Amino acid sequence: MVVVMRPGATEADVQHVVCLVREFGMKEHLIYGTDRVVIACIGDKRMVDKQAIENAPMVEKIVPILAPYKLASVEVKSTKTIVEIGPQRLPIGGQRIAVIAGPCAVEGRDQLLRIAQAVAKAGCVGLRGGAFKPRTSPYTFQGLGEEALKILAEARQLTGLAIVTEVTGLEHLDICLEYADVLQIGARNMQHYPLLEAVGRSGRPVLLKRGMSAQLDEFLLAAEYIISAGNPNVILCERGIRTFEQYVRNTLALAIVPELAVRTHLPVIVDPSHGTGHAHLVPAMCRAAVAAGADGLIIECHFDPEHAASDGAQCIRPDVLAAEMQVLRRIAQAIGRQL
Amino acid sequence: MVVVMRPGATEADVQHVVCLVREFGMKEHLIYGTDRVVIACIGDKRMVDKQAIENAPMVEKIVPILAPYKLASVEVKSTKTIVEIGPQRLPIGGQRIAVIAGPCAVEGRDQLLRIAQAVAKAGCVGLRGGAFKPRTSPYTFQGLGEEALKILAEARQLTGLAIVTEVTGLEHLDICLEYADVLQIGARNMQHYPLLEAVGRSGRPVLLKRGMSAQLDEFLLAAEYIISAGNPNVILCERGIRTFEQYVRNTLALAIVPELAVRTHLPVIVDPSHGTGHAHLVPAMCRAAVAAGADGLIIECHFDPEHAASDGAQCIRPDVLAAEMQVLRRIAQAIGRQL
Amino acid sequence: MVVVMRPGATEADVQHVVCLVREFGMKEHLIYGTDRVVIACIGDKRMVDKQAIENAPMVEKIVPILAPYKLASVEVKSTKTIVEIGPQRLPIGGQRIAVIAGPCAVEGRDQLLRIAQAVAKAGCVGLRGGAFKPRTSPYTFQGLGEEALKILAEARQLTGLAIVTEVTGLEHLDICLEYADVLQIGARNMQHYPLLEAVGRSGRPVLLKRGMSAQLDEFLLAAEYIISAGNPNVILCERGIRTFEQYVRNTLALAIVPELAVRTHLPVIVDPSHGTGHAHLVPAMCRAAVAAGADGLIIECHFDPEHAASDGAQCIRPDVLAAEMQVLRRIAQAIGRQL
Amino acid sequence: MVVVMRPGATEADVQHVVCLVREFGMKEHLIYGTDRVVIACIGDKRMVDKQAIENAPMVEKIVPILAPYKLASVEVKSTKTIVEIGPQRLPIGGQRIAVIAGPCAVEGRDQLLRIAQAVAKAGCVGLRGGAFKPRTSPYTFQGLGEEALKILAEARQLTGLAIVTEVTGLEHLDICLEYADVLQIGARNMQHYPLLEAVGRSGRPVLLKRGMSAQLDEFLLAAEYIISAGNPNVILCERGIRTFEQYVRNTLALAIVPELAVRTHLPVIVDPSHGTGHAHLVPAMCRAAVAAGADGLIIECHFDPEHAASDGAQCIRPDVLAAEMQVLRRIAQAIGRQL
Repeated sequence: MVVVMRPGATEADVQHVVCLVREFGMKEHLIYGTDRVVIACIGDKRMVDKQAIENAPMVEKIVPILAPYKLASVEVKSTKTIVEIGPQRLPIGGQRIAVIAGPCAVEGRDQLLRIAQAVAKAGCVGLRGGAFKPRTSPYTFQGLGEEALKILAEARQLTGLAIVTEVTGLEHLDICLEYADVLQIGARNMQHYPLLEAVGRSGRPVLLKRGMSAQLDEFLLAAEYIISAGNPNVILCERGIRTFEQYVRNTLALAIVPELAVRTHLPVIVDPSHGTGHAHLVPAMCRAAVAAGADGLIIECHFDPEHAASDGAQCIRPDVLAAEMQVLRRIAQAIGRQL
Repeated sequence: MVVVMRPGATEADVQHVVCLVREFGMKEHLIYGTDRVVIACIGDKRMVDKQAIENAPMVEKIVPILAPYKLASVEVKSTKTIVEIGPQRLPIGGQRIAVIAGPCAVEGRDQLLRIAQAVAKAGCVGLRGGAFKPRTSPYTFQGLGEEALKILAEARQLTGLAIVTEVTGLEHLDICLEYADVLQIGARNMQHYPLLEAVGRSGRPVLLKRGMSAQLDEFLLAAEYIISAGNPNVILCERGIRTFEQYVRNTLALAIVPELAVRTHLPVIVDPSHGTGHAHLVPAMCRAAVAAGADGLIIECHFDPEHAASDGAQCIRPDVLAAEMQVLRRIAQAIGRQL
Repeated sequence: MVVVMRPGATEADVQHVVCLVREFGMKEHLIYGTDRVVIACIGDKRMVDKQAIENAPMVEKIVPILAPYKLASVEVKSTKTIVEIGPQRLPIGGQRIAVIAGPCAVEGRDQLLRIAQAVAKAGCVGLRGGAFKPRTSPYTFQGLGEEALKILAEARQLTGLAIVTEVTGLEHLDICLEYADVLQIGARNMQHYPLLEAVGRSGRPVLLKRGMSAQLDEFLLAAEYIISAGNPNVILCERGIRTFEQYVRNTLALAIVPELAVRTHLPVIVDPSHGTGHAHLVPAMCRAAVAAGADGLIIECHFDPEHAASDGAQCIRPDVLAAEMQVLRRIAQAIGRQL
Repeated sequence: MVVVMRPGATEADVQHVVCLVREFGMKEHLIYGTDRVVIACIGDKRMVDKQAIENAPMVEKIVPILAPYKLASVEVKSTKTIVEIGPQRLPIGGQRIAVIAGPCAVEGRDQLLRIAQAVAKAGCVGLRGGAFKPRTSPYTFQGLGEEALKILAEARQLTGLAIVTEVTGLEHLDICLEYADVLQIGARNMQHYPLLEAVGRSGRPVLLKRGMSAQLDEFLLAAEYIISAGNPNVILCERGIRTFEQYVRNTLALAIVPELAVRTHLPVIVDPSHGTGHAHLVPAMCRAAVAAGADGLIIECHFDPEHAASDGAQCIRPDVLAAEMQVLRRIAQAIGRQL
């Protein structure tokens, strides 16, 4: 951390800050520049909230130097984490790119088993499907609950696919743990800390979606909550951010894929469905994500999007998925990977 | 809702959409324009997710016409809602502007009782203080829990102030209901629907903070969740949004105050502390919020911000609060209100 | 400037950076922290683009410490700048708050003279009116050109108001200089540097609007261009920024008013018309801006907004302006100023 | 356009709007819904600013239905535009993906000729290089002016590459026309309308960069200015937008590539250098852009980025460019194109 003093700060002002710095367990290093005094602070800076030094007299600003996360960082673990999911322990984060697909919500047994078979046949490794749906409006479909989870388990039995489903609150964690292979933490819950800690304690693989206005550091700090609770099996998922753009539901920020690769050892997948909100943009963004180096994709897929209970506008049909998998396979090869 | 067809759409394409519209319980109204066909859909459009019509052949886009919320709207209730809080049943939303102040987190009994007395003396109506702190980093102070709630209750006894504290998850709701006069839903939980429903069922006044990237409609839909669960006592709180600006923690979007006044009957308060993130900006933004027509303010206040356990950079000292209350009183009078 | 090395950087990596730092005319100061080496660079850092050091081996990032502007800064000039405008040399930036009002575009002689009289009678000091309109669409009204400037000059003659008009390009500067008291640089031109330099050389007061996605530093650097060309008469204008919000044309970021007050000596005014885009939000935002400490306002005003040639949706009527001026006067007094 | 009336609007309110609609040359179509009256307006809606109807009594809002651009739209021209550039008339917008590379600024003859040869050898079709540099700070390198243009022309002679250079203002257009094959309009000038019209009249191919906070419609309206001035040779360029993200200089919004493909016939290229701001992110974003369907790339490239006169942090070295071209070629083939 670096504390920048205002011009005209007296030695007493500087010493006051030095005292604060020492109180917080850091060692100071004074630099007298041409325009002002700068206090470099040495020591572990992750343990306390030190922005308050900003309130000391004649302090201009505080500049953090170190990333606030640790366990998620390449500095602590330089080899890439591979998370194994489902009955076949399929690896996410290795050489092979993994695709998870399925409907936004489980709407019924027939719907799900049929789509599960199409997803498996297309070469995917996981099946997504919501049991508890967090919906923006209280007047829309809220999910089938445990019934949905049972149907998902049946689909796993049938296809071997790993089951990915969202845990929307602590109150549903136990029931989800009974059926799901991967616990999804939705974008709205990325900073719901009691839930992060609980899935952390569970040890089950977690698919952590980036909040729609989360900074990169906040995203990795959310992963840190899970890892520090004892669970290293975290898969990060970029799903688009909120910007001024209106032709998309979210702006898919793909540069985060190579940036995360230099900052964290965790695998990174991309959700082009929420990341765009429109089915006609999904194929191109699947291709872009794979080309950018993503370890996988999670795609919304439905036989009859016009009648989907939720998020129909961003669902692609299974035939589009199957065709796209062929193209993605060629792109994976072009960059030296498989799919 | 209006469905806009692409140029070149055939009568069959139009009829396909008409069928979907009728299936969804709406009546269609066809308009043949100079460039394309537009289908106006009449009926209650709040019950189903109809974006999926976008996926039908030759549909260009869907344009919603009605707001997605209802109970929160001035159309359903045109008189302004007044929420009464605390032992003295002080009104929020009336002629008199209400100020809530206090530390980010309860750090101890002495700290809190001392600040509570200063807050009461300055003329505030409520005392804020966090018991369970949702912190971005797992390595920072997480709050004193129930002990904090007991101290808050003691402060209420001492000062008559209404107690405002954040409920961070369903698991803490019962304990918070035991002690708090107003349940705060933090920005990160604005779309945590199980929690919204639960505080809705409780009937206790709720202070609902806008999520840091929530659209106005999403904010009012979150209020709708609470009201539709049976609780009309919702106080909306603008606390700044995430933008590209870097000199502030959040961008305080004050135009939402007059906009909400024409859309909803709910009272609206402003949080200039989170809304800026820096103590030196708080007084000016308190003034601006009152001048813009806010029904109240919620301000972070601490005797020793440099050592605050959390959010010290945005805390003002009690003497600054007291002086500012005088100015705010004059501004309230200037616009025909009291404080 | 601070250069942060990656963990594992060798002494040779550090020395390579030290060489670059010296080449750029700075002096290095090495700090060996617990996790990594940090190189504080001392010297005038404004003259060269040093982000490129980021490309040196094992460099993690570059952290700037000093603001990139100088002449616009309170460090160089601590007393507030007062810009005098118009035939009466009315001060902007002093104790008295100044209001500029008028139509978006000059549409004709009768329209303008009538509105000018209403604006003067309401107690404003300046008259705004566009002669050359930069319009988003090539199919909308583009302004009356020199004819508009002549009408504005006639209005000045009649009312004594200072004339504020936008210079949209170098090619119009001479003609604008012939008629205008204040040269407005529009938001879209905030970084049109040849124009900034030219208005700088002219010496005429400049009203510089913040670009709709300009960071605070970029805004002050644009002012720096004008001042460094020899013109200290710069009035800064906040006019809203582009964010994800959709109920407004722009998000009016009023916290910039108190922030600029601690960073620059230049006067700051607010444009609540572009800052919201909707007439019904303008009065509340005028009040908020004055309460926040703005030195003035620039407001769009039209007798018949429904038929305004441009920006009608954000124009208020002269009777609303006159009534609002009374309220603003009381708010000014509440904070110890006049209007 | 659709006008939505407030609930409680009387027949007189509706008739007042109907009059306005007719005045503006449109035909009204009244729809009496369950909650309110909606007035669909039929006719060419591009010619006047009709947002002002919003100001009529009891109008709730105006909803545009048609895109505001015309000549840039696929509705007017459904076959894809191919723009031919340089002495070899190389096509941009066809089956073959085109890469333009070169330094941010021309710094000298030796630098440029050397990099031009590397760029040509790597298989690029164009050479970029700035002669007049619009720099955020008045204290940084501003470009070599005409000398730079002469050097660029010499490089074209030597290599056959098409020369791409930015025109920063009307005052430099003639001199740029003398030397350049493609006139670049920078992001800051995307809405500098006099310049758009002037390059439109010139007929020379234009590379139009998206403004850093431009909506998609505004981007296409800027192209419309150029086309409507008589120049159909417009190449659109996505170069990243300003968002809350801080690990990148801009957020590269690649979904615009497939979205533009369904809206416009113009070719679309991507600038991964400005689109990220950091050299280590450039290769992945080149790959993603090609996979997403871009017609080309424009990349900053320098032999010695650490000493580049501008934008060094985002320059890749020629050996990285050459290696990357091989990968891009394979990705192009994977999606059925060439490079």
